[in-house]
Amino acid sequence: MKILKNSERATGKGPADWFTGGVWIEPVVSPEAPSRLQAAYVTFTPGARTNWHTHPVSQILNVVSGFGWVQLEGEPAKRIAPGDVVVIGPGENHWHGADAGRALVHLAMQEQDEAGSVVSWGRPVSDEEYAAVR
Amino acid sequence: MKILKNSERATGKGPADWFTGGVWIEPVVSPEAPSRLQAAYVTFTPGARTNWHTHPVSQILNVVSGFGWVQLEGEPAKRIAPGDVVVIGPGENHWHGADAGRALVHLAMQEQDEAGSVVSWGRPVSDEEYAAVR
Repeated sequence: MKILKNSERATGKGPADWFTGGVWIEPVVSPEAPSRLQAAYVTFTPGARTNWHTHPVSQILNVVSGFGWVQLEGEPAKRIAPGDVVVIGPGENHWHGADAGRALVHLAMQEQDEAGSVVSWGRPVSDEEYAAVR
Repeated sequence: MKILKNSERATGKGPADWFTGGVWIEPVVSPEAPSRLQAAYVTFTPGARTNWHTHPVSQILNVVSGFGWVQLEGEPAKRIAPGDVVVIGPGENHWHGADAGRALVHLAMQEQDEAGSVVSWGRPVSDEEYAAVR
């Protein structure tokens, strides 16, 4: 058993290669075999969002606060609010992020595949794509 | 992709076979292959606790609110507070629950083994064992 006290945890900036706008990541756990779970709280400032991306196994989001959007490729974006749970299946191309006028905090849980990968990143969500969300 | 709105989610009573005192469970996700992740928020009323138990793969706890305790067999109980993360390895016999005078809410994440098991339940934490916690 290992206890990581809240004061010993860290919040890091989400890299510009993966996100548009101000995104902050607070890891909960990194995979340690036999577990393959990675979990983190992600804070998006208003207008911030992930790039398009896929997960090899799955991704579960649980919204903690604020208001945001999730979009599956080829479908309209859907609103997400506190308490909502989003289940994204293997290979589903999608993005998520804050509303233009609201911050968003969600917990994100994803599992490693056999190769140790939890995510495959694509291109940014363009301003035109983001502006079409409502 | 599947979105479960907060209003469609449910909170159930934790069964007396697994818990002592008032415990409420709010599932976030149940395993759906290839994912093997099960996650839930667990609310313990003051004095409530799990039975002794083990997990075949792992368990990650993240305290949301309140104040509680986690104990690994053969070791003194340790205090847990909001933001703390507890990582429990495969087969580690332990229990967790609320302080005698405080409620506790934590997120619990565990993974299925090949047989589909996420937990193996043991006997209740006796009042004597619980009273020794401080």
